[in-house]
Order: sequence, then C-alpha cells, then structure tokens
Amino acid sequence: MNDEDVTFSKLKPNYKLWLEFDGKYVFGPGAYAIMNHVLKKGTLTGVTESTGMSYRYAWGVIRKIEATLGVKILVTFKGGPSGGGGAKVTDFGLKLMQMFAKVQGGFDRASEV
Amino acid sequence: MNDEDVTFSKLKPNYKLWLEFDGKYVFGPGAYAIMNHVLKKGTLTGVTESTGMSYRYAWGVIRKIEATLGVKILVTFKGGPSGGGGAKVTDFGLKLMQMFAKVQGGFDRASEV
Repeated sequence: MNDEDVTFSKLKPNYKLWLEFDGKYVFGPGAYAIMNHVLKKGTLTGVTESTGMSYRYAWGVIRKIEATLGVKILVTFKGGPSGGGGAKVTDFGLKLMQMFAKVQGGFDRASEV
Repeated sequence: MNDEDVTFSKLKPNYKLWLEFDGKYVFGPGAYAIMNHVLKKGTLTGVTESTGMSYRYAWGVIRKIEATLGVKILVTFKGGPSGGGGAKVTDFGLKLMQMFAKVQGGFDRASEV
C-alpha cells in the first residue's frame, strides 16, 4: 500500500442514531440503554452501574419520552416474588426498542466498508 | 389503527453520519456538500448559494480535513477554457466522497422502517 492507501484504510464511519416523533427528537441510545437494563434486570435499580446515568436522571429520560408520545413505555409494580417490586417494559416500549435496534443493526452493517 | 398504532406510525429514524480518521472526526455532510459543489461546477465560486457556507468558511473546512489526513482533497488551477481558473476534486477526495455516499445510502435504506 502507498501512503494514501494507508491513510484511507484508517477512515471509518461513525454515527448518532435517534428516533423522531412528528419531526422532534424523542428516543436515542441513552433511553435504549435504560430500557435494556430494565428488560434484563426487571428493575431500574443498578441502572447507574450499567449506563452511567443516575436513577433519577434515567427516570427523567423515560418520563420525557412518555410525555412526548402520550404512551407508557415503562411501568413499575409492587410486590412480586422478591417482594421488592420492579419495573417492566410495556408492549409499546418493546416496539420502540425493536425499531431502534433494527435500524441500528442496518447502520452497523452499512458501516462495514 | 388504535391510538398507539397511530403514535408508532409517526416515529421515524434520523441520524448524523461522519467519517473518523484514527478515531477523530474528519469528514461530515458539510464537507461532502462543498465537494459536491466543486464536482458539479468545477469551482468553489457559488458555494454559499448551494451550501449556505461562506467561501472562506468552506475553504477552512477543506483545509482542516487536508491537514488532518495529510492528503489534498481539492486542488485549484489557473487558466483553463474560461481563463478564470477553477477547482477540482482529487482522486483521494473522490474516494472519500464515495465512501461517505455509500454508507449514507445504506443508512437511508436501513431507515425505511
């Protein structure tokens, strides 16, 4: 390879992906990470360790999305097997996550140049 | 469609794409627009009308990329048929544009959800 080929080989695409509602930002990688935590753990507890966002900030992210969409994406409940309650991604929240993940998968494949 | 389906149908992906060199931002949509202008017109004259960037700013964008990469992506020349000189995208500049356009095309297809 000549110098220009070496330079070219060091170029890589990068991107930021988000979802818009009526043309307005509503859902990005931070919200996805929070919901993925809830999906895996069944609770928002521990979200700081897995995402770097505080528990309060993470709830704020979710509440803002729900206010924009007018639809619940996470619900909390009391009791359950452990007795300590927990959180659950709603069916609509799951559809939102699936849309984001599907597009992201396509972007990652398109980035392999 | 119920209300949630209507809401879901209004969600659309959007993105920002750029190229990185050794992990550092180097080339984005603004630079692509400048180079596309030169490709079509053979000069940087008129770049403000087509991109909204001033002539001086547009040159600054190109020079910064060239400084980062250590490779020329645009060259200027004097004379020519009109006698007024012009600008030309280098072979390396073309490869850069092609890489960006190819990934962008993949992103646009992946966004059609």
